Amino acid sequence: MKPWSGRFSKETDKLVEEYTAAEDITLDKKLIIYDIIGTEVHNIMLNRVGILETATLNKILSTLDELKNLWEAGKFALKIDYEDVHMNVEKFVIDKIGEETGGMMHLARSRNDQVLLDLRLYIRDEICEIFDLILELINVFMEKVEKNSETVMPAYTHFQPAQPITFAFWCMAHVDAFIRDLTRLNEIFKRINTNPLGAGAIAGVSWSIDRSITMDLLNFDGIQENALDVISSRGEFTSELLAIFSIIMTHLGKISTDLILWSSKEFNLIELDDAFTTGSSIMPQKKNPDAAELVRAKANKIIGYLSQNLGILQGLPSGYNRDFQETKGPLMYSIDIIKGSVKIVSGMIKTVKINKDRMLSLANSNFITATELIDLLMKKGNISFRTAHKIVGKLVGVLISKDLDLNNLKATMIEETIKNSINKEIEITDDDIQKAINPWKTVQRREHIGGPSKKEVLRMYKDRKNIIKEITEKNLDRKNNIKKSYESLEKLVQTLISNKKTKE
Amino acid sequence: MKPWSGRFSKETDKLVEEYTAAEDITLDKKLIIYDIIGTEVHNIMLNRVGILETATLNKILSTLDELKNLWEAGKFALKIDYEDVHMNVEKFVIDKIGEETGGMMHLARSRNDQVLLDLRLYIRDEICEIFDLILELINVFMEKVEKNSETVMPAYTHFQPAQPITFAFWCMAHVDAFIRDLTRLNEIFKRINTNPLGAGAIAGVSWSIDRSITMDLLNFDGIQENALDVISSRGEFTSELLAIFSIIMTHLGKISTDLILWSSKEFNLIELDDAFTTGSSIMPQKKNPDAAELVRAKANKIIGYLSQNLGILQGLPSGYNRDFQETKGPLMYSIDIIKGSVKIVSGMIKTVKINKDRMLSLANSNFITATELIDLLMKKGNISFRTAHKIVGKLVGVLISKDLDLNNLKATMIEETIKNSINKEIEITDDDIQKAINPWKTVQRREHIGGPSKKEVLRMYKDRKNIIKEITEKNLDRKNNIKKSYESLEKLVQTLISNKKTKE
Amino acid sequence: MKPWSGRFSKETDKLVEEYTAAEDITLDKKLIIYDIIGTEVHNIMLNRVGILETATLNKILSTLDELKNLWEAGKFALKIDYEDVHMNVEKFVIDKIGEETGGMMHLARSRNDQVLLDLRLYIRDEICEIFDLILELINVFMEKVEKNSETVMPAYTHFQPAQPITFAFWCMAHVDAFIRDLTRLNEIFKRINTNPLGAGAIAGVSWSIDRSITMDLLNFDGIQENALDVISSRGEFTSELLAIFSIIMTHLGKISTDLILWSSKEFNLIELDDAFTTGSSIMPQKKNPDAAELVRAKANKIIGYLSQNLGILQGLPSGYNRDFQETKGPLMYSIDIIKGSVKIVSGMIKTVKINKDRMLSLANSNFITATELIDLLMKKGNISFRTAHKIVGKLVGVLISKDLDLNNLKATMIEETIKNSINKEIEITDDDIQKAINPWKTVQRREHIGGPSKKEVLRMYKDRKNIIKEITEKNLDRKNNIKKSYESLEKLVQTLISNKKTKE
Amino acid sequence: MKPWSGRFSKETDKLVEEYTAAEDITLDKKLIIYDIIGTEVHNIMLNRVGILETATLNKILSTLDELKNLWEAGKFALKIDYEDVHMNVEKFVIDKIGEETGGMMHLARSRNDQVLLDLRLYIRDEICEIFDLILELINVFMEKVEKNSETVMPAYTHFQPAQPITFAFWCMAHVDAFIRDLTRLNEIFKRINTNPLGAGAIAGVSWSIDRSITMDLLNFDGIQENALDVISSRGEFTSELLAIFSIIMTHLGKISTDLILWSSKEFNLIELDDAFTTGSSIMPQKKNPDAAELVRAKANKIIGYLSQNLGILQGLPSGYNRDFQETKGPLMYSIDIIKGSVKIVSGMIKTVKINKDRMLSLANSNFITATELIDLLMKKGNISFRTAHKIVGKLVGVLISKDLDLNNLKATMIEETIKNSINKEIEITDDDIQKAINPWKTVQRREHIGGPSKKEVLRMYKDRKNIIKEITEKNLDRKNNIKKSYESLEKLVQTLISNKKTKE
Repeated sequence: MKPWSGRFSKETDKLVEEYTAAEDITLDKKLIIYDIIGTEVHNIMLNRVGILETATLNKILSTLDELKNLWEAGKFALKIDYEDVHMNVEKFVIDKIGEETGGMMHLARSRNDQVLLDLRLYIRDEICEIFDLILELINVFMEKVEKNSETVMPAYTHFQPAQPITFAFWCMAHVDAFIRDLTRLNEIFKRINTNPLGAGAIAGVSWSIDRSITMDLLNFDGIQENALDVISSRGEFTSELLAIFSIIMTHLGKISTDLILWSSKEFNLIELDDAFTTGSSIMPQKKNPDAAELVRAKANKIIGYLSQNLGILQGLPSGYNRDFQETKGPLMYSIDIIKGSVKIVSGMIKTVKINKDRMLSLANSNFITATELIDLLMKKGNISFRTAHKIVGKLVGVLISKDLDLNNLKATMIEETIKNSINKEIEITDDDIQKAINPWKTVQRREHIGGPSKKEVLRMYKDRKNIIKEITEKNLDRKNNIKKSYESLEKLVQTLISNKKTKE
Repeated sequence: MKPWSGRFSKETDKLVEEYTAAEDITLDKKLIIYDIIGTEVHNIMLNRVGILETATLNKILSTLDELKNLWEAGKFALKIDYEDVHMNVEKFVIDKIGEETGGMMHLARSRNDQVLLDLRLYIRDEICEIFDLILELINVFMEKVEKNSETVMPAYTHFQPAQPITFAFWCMAHVDAFIRDLTRLNEIFKRINTNPLGAGAIAGVSWSIDRSITMDLLNFDGIQENALDVISSRGEFTSELLAIFSIIMTHLGKISTDLILWSSKEFNLIELDDAFTTGSSIMPQKKNPDAAELVRAKANKIIGYLSQNLGILQGLPSGYNRDFQETKGPLMYSIDIIKGSVKIVSGMIKTVKINKDRMLSLANSNFITATELIDLLMKKGNISFRTAHKIVGKLVGVLISKDLDLNNLKATMIEETIKNSINKEIEITDDDIQKAINPWKTVQRREHIGGPSKKEVLRMYKDRKNIIKEITEKNLDRKNNIKKSYESLEKLVQTLISNKKTKE
Repeated sequence: MKPWSGRFSKETDKLVEEYTAAEDITLDKKLIIYDIIGTEVHNIMLNRVGILETATLNKILSTLDELKNLWEAGKFALKIDYEDVHMNVEKFVIDKIGEETGGMMHLARSRNDQVLLDLRLYIRDEICEIFDLILELINVFMEKVEKNSETVMPAYTHFQPAQPITFAFWCMAHVDAFIRDLTRLNEIFKRINTNPLGAGAIAGVSWSIDRSITMDLLNFDGIQENALDVISSRGEFTSELLAIFSIIMTHLGKISTDLILWSSKEFNLIELDDAFTTGSSIMPQKKNPDAAELVRAKANKIIGYLSQNLGILQGLPSGYNRDFQETKGPLMYSIDIIKGSVKIVSGMIKTVKINKDRMLSLANSNFITATELIDLLMKKGNISFRTAHKIVGKLVGVLISKDLDLNNLKATMIEETIKNSINKEIEITDDDIQKAINPWKTVQRREHIGGPSKKEVLRMYKDRKNIIKEITEKNLDRKNNIKKSYESLEKLVQTLISNKKTKE
Repeated sequence: MKPWSGRFSKETDKLVEEYTAAEDITLDKKLIIYDIIGTEVHNIMLNRVGILETATLNKILSTLDELKNLWEAGKFALKIDYEDVHMNVEKFVIDKIGEETGGMMHLARSRNDQVLLDLRLYIRDEICEIFDLILELINVFMEKVEKNSETVMPAYTHFQPAQPITFAFWCMAHVDAFIRDLTRLNEIFKRINTNPLGAGAIAGVSWSIDRSITMDLLNFDGIQENALDVISSRGEFTSELLAIFSIIMTHLGKISTDLILWSSKEFNLIELDDAFTTGSSIMPQKKNPDAAELVRAKANKIIGYLSQNLGILQGLPSGYNRDFQETKGPLMYSIDIIKGSVKIVSGMIKTVKINKDRMLSLANSNFITATELIDLLMKKGNISFRTAHKIVGKLVGVLISKDLDLNNLKATMIEETIKNSINKEIEITDDDIQKAINPWKTVQRREHIGGPSKKEVLRMYKDRKNIIKEITEKNLDRKNNIKKSYESLEKLVQTLISNKKTKE
């Protein structure tokens, strides 16, 4: 019989057990250590405020410690019959030390606030890890920047060649995007790292608990106060986190799409490493960018998990509803996807081979620097931007119709076209044209803030270097603080346990 | 080294193996039997058209048979190192009988058409099973109809009491909805039950295969012809199926919402069985409709899986892209959810306790039959519908302000109000009013097609009984045909294997 | 004051009017004609069964006719103050002919069943139109098939060249996909084309209406019977339709992605017509595939509208809830998107320029026919498929490392590799190789069902021609039947009106 | 002909114009003022760095000023033929002052960075407004707190009565949730309020622009630097904003669900004001919570718009793609929905009638304080929590079976049950029980941080009062700064224009 079954006259249908707990109990593997820690802390607090006797506390802690060791040794399994991790842990303790003692463990809390505690401890560790993985990816891009500030390549809009940039400039764009993602993670961390314990089922508890004790022991930054708000907001942080993940995945997806496209035979701007591609069971020539394709596909999964999460919350009344449980899967699956995807993209970028010749060659064709001619015409012909744009457009049209490229453009053609279009005479040399349309010169000209010139890219590089250093340290601090609090707790628990043993 | 690694100079990164195959290989457990069957059939066809020697065929079949037995005995595990179920199976065969023989197995097909074959064989079995589960649920509702055609209760709109119906009428509404769902499953079944094998990687194969042989052996209804279409349409049938599932889940979700609401203490129209509810770890009085809540939440999961599936497809070019693989999870998780959810709702409806007294009492209060007075006023007063509506509205307003219910309405009040509103005199008796507003009489009056009167409900019941019989038989036929084709195939395979043994 | 305001003591807050009706009243423009028709039919039925006097009917019909003319002349505007199209129409009628007569119009129905009627009449017309637009698109593809059964091009998997096909084969793949879409539209049409009128608010009506009369007058295929089911299933058909639309959009999106990719300078397989591309405000050389990009983006919008629609339904109890209204937008916006997108893709395909030389050239490079060598090696060397696959893989690796293509492969290289790999001697000629790897020959070899050979493509072409003819006629019939029913109704209405005038 | 049509030989197909611009040009109405401001600022900067002559600048500014006046007077309409707001504005200017002068306006920028500028100016104003509306809603809740800290009511979990709270406590929970939403808006504001102008099409421009000038003139907090990142990140801020909106909507939706449920006749805890409800066209007694239902439904719309937005971005390569345009609708529609929904909920809460008697009565029944007995049993019986929980569960079961409520519980029953269950004798009085289960006493006992006791609620109330004051001022500052920058700009523009006039 379930521990809550006092008022029930029938056992839970097996079908219901399976339906309500099968996936959940598997997911709970990620929570059990946090559940034990949370229970230790809760019971220490109960003791400090005088609700729980020291002897009882010590026995409970000792049994929890035993369980932790069993779990870490792979000798404990969560059972579906006991519903969830919380009841599995309580069952273990009661079985060991009896209901008289073990039955005190759950006093003054509910599974509703307990699971929130477990989830937050779990999430904050995962955020720290994801933070580090993204930092690593940023550093991979930064390394590429150093070596490629002169690697000219085309930038595309609408899948069409637009203007020349450098590969370093492309890398820096992603660095900036990921720095924003880290800022978002920093912001949500503050909100997640608050203490939910003490909210009870929905309305707090009738015992004089002290929520600041558990807050301190677990290194929380604060307390989420209103009990009803604590319980009702389950899923809110998950939504927020999955939204941040979705944005991260669109960044990773964008990079993957670039890599897939650029490693096509037709683009051929890069070659992915053999270790990050796979072959075909039937076509022996194939070398496919499978990993990149899966990053792209998995981005859609996270977007879908976000939809699931928001959909589950939407329409619920305030308070706890069992529906909340179903937000656990979307959260945990998404965390795994994010970590794998960041690593995969790091690996691909780190090992990618850049075809510099092909890049330059494409930056030198397809009229990619036509915009530069506008400037030339404006200066030489004293004509407006829009007029110059139209004339260059016409010139491009003529060249294409003759199957020629921009490099074939002659000064006489320009002079003629201007004469015919706006009846103006200008003087221009072939050398003027070549200087204007040279892709490297074009890149170098763009040295305003955020431009692709070598100088500006290196300035941004240096600036971001400092930012990265700062946020790396911040995350290190954060991790250290959590680690230290767990170590202190462990020390405290061991002291209490040994007190108990001494007494025995 | 992977079987396709001829042109590669490096092994796949472990990270990539994990990222691309970890979840997939787990899902493939549901496909391995189908993969073996498909390989048997493919090789038999190759032999029949003269591409594969009989001796080779028999050895392959014998090894596949061995594998099948191992799998069913739980003695074979899919390994992530061999990527997917297809390569795991080939690896097993080649390890057993050598590459010279086993290396013929994959001739004239690709994993691209092979996985489509596996998926369709899997899906069609699942559709048949889901069909049966929904039929069972329909029958559960039909049983309730028989006993409740006189169980008067309120129907709600906007969470407000609207008009009286019967519980049988409510059940019949769900019967009709689920019959539509079964029609949709019938329609998609025809499209799914077509042969994709022979499409190869994307453009068919250069061998003179005969796709009608494999079609016949596997009891397909036809061939999906154009090879490029076959490969490109991966995910299309999944989208369609998940859309049907989403609709089914909104039906189940609607029922669950009704059950949750009606079993609230305040509504108290029904009581869920103890076996389909759970308690609280802290509040001893609690009996919560968790199973129903999870049906509601899981509906959102399937809607999210549909989004994932469509999102993954959207934006891909024609042909095969690895992204397709990620549609496998949404499909398989959704199938499990649907089956579990239908069973849970069946269980809840089968065991629910109906509070008939409370139902009738609520159907007798809250002005639920006010609409009926309109009719009375129109007849007695010779006034238009809209005018009568306004007058009844006013009367309701007056009664509410005096804290009275419709049963307290007196003929004099009506007469007065009509006099004051439109300066008309009408004659009406208290008895007229009571006849009009009686909920059972109201229900009985509604005997047009689709109305809640006992007569009409029983007519619909009888009609649906026939429809259910017909579609039950249809699904039985379908299942039998599949079963027979598998039995014939098994017989054929065993004959060929024993031929081989005889020769040895 | 609102017509339902009898029991209310305050007017609706302006904010509420705006919030509840602003978008809705705009959308209702698409429904007003159907609302008038539905009202005509409902009142004719009421008269036939003896509930409504003929004189009243005729006056109502005459006023509705007047309104229809005003609307069509652009002289009538829906007002937010009267909430929705239904109340706007009733208001007009009552203002014209008084509440005594016009106030009878809404008798024995509710806005709940009325809006379902309007929506179904609207949807079935739209389905017919979309059906025709897709048929037109199919025909555009069919025309391209005729001229391109010898236009060899590469087929891609993973954005990498896979095997040679023809442009005609690519077109035929889309023809088959769209034929499936039409089948789905046919299936849903049957379900949508059933009569909801008579379901009333939720439980039918207390008047002896005859729902088969309205069914016949409106050319419905049947009646959706159970009143509660009728009302509760609002949004179900929309979900189903949006799911079909989502699938259609993934088809259109796939084509668009191909077109965008192939019209990139690097692929250069096709050129989109100037009329279906746009330029840049700053880069004069640009010619961008904007229309195709928007098809791709709008596909995501429909997927999102489907999510909205399902999300709105999910979690609602049975019966009517105002939430339903919000499904109107997703439906109507999606219909507009679908129609525009099909037309745009038709236009792009019709006008696209195919670069046959480039297609052939790409089908002749990048080892695209390497698979064909497997066959050769198997025959000549009597080796298994998997062994041959590995050897060809190695050969490809060697050629790439030497910067050579498949055309540079010499028989001696093969012989040597086989010798070294499996210590076997085989004889092969350079001519054998050339025959094997020739892309046109490769295509022609694939003549099994669904293969890209000219013969098989033309067989499929002919077969689909017949199917298209058949479904075209089916849709024509459907449209004609609807048209005829409206004409008969109009005739009937005019007769009744003129009767009225005669009498006056 | 389009201004970019130099290289084109055909005009854009009308179909394409309609498909690409019809919805967009309507949405652009919200941007035109920002587009004019952005153009003013851009041209002033060009002049300051010496690229644009002062005479030209003044003419452009003067014409833009004229356009602004026309627009505000409703005398200018955006035309689909000129594609978008940017080209419409340029067209107007060139038409007025000629291409020679007006054709300079678009120099050194692209529509790609221009639209980003327009959107950010638009969004930041909207965020400020939404911020204020949410503050107003928070204040509405705060007012209710003052009057209801003793209004005892049941809190629900699983739609079942759980424990007693107060209405003030429920209000405070929402206050805390909305304060978090405001924090999120503050965080995104910083990211959005950065200058994108100068990113050009994708790679900056070849002119020596100074992006800090435009930053200062527009009161931006900084510059989003890397040009490629600026362009590629279109849609990122929209995703983030829509995610925040989705969370806000789940808060509003939760409140709406509570209001709908509680205003059902069966719960009857509250009554919505007549002005925030509507009636039925057929059922005269109906008073429906339509506005609340629509908040609930519209929440799903925003979740769907978020999906659309993310889906559109996902899979795109870096750089600009026309797909981005389709994110404009989801953004703008969502902003309108959010503003409307916050106002509606404010209105409903402000006017809601609280049925205090019913609240107290429900807080006094349904075993809602059973948890309190555990405490009593633990103290009196010296038994563990879990044992006490089981015994109370049993007592509840017995009472229910006898159709009794908790108030009927006698000390003797407890003593007996304990005796029978665990063979223990305890002493307890009926008075002990009544003290324990009194709902008001229960509430008052819960005075730890975040509990519902009057004392703690008032402490939180006071604390939040300060926080609200602080963030209100912050938003006021923000709005003032933006306002001042616009005023300074307007002054500057007018000075320049009058200079021009003076010279003329």
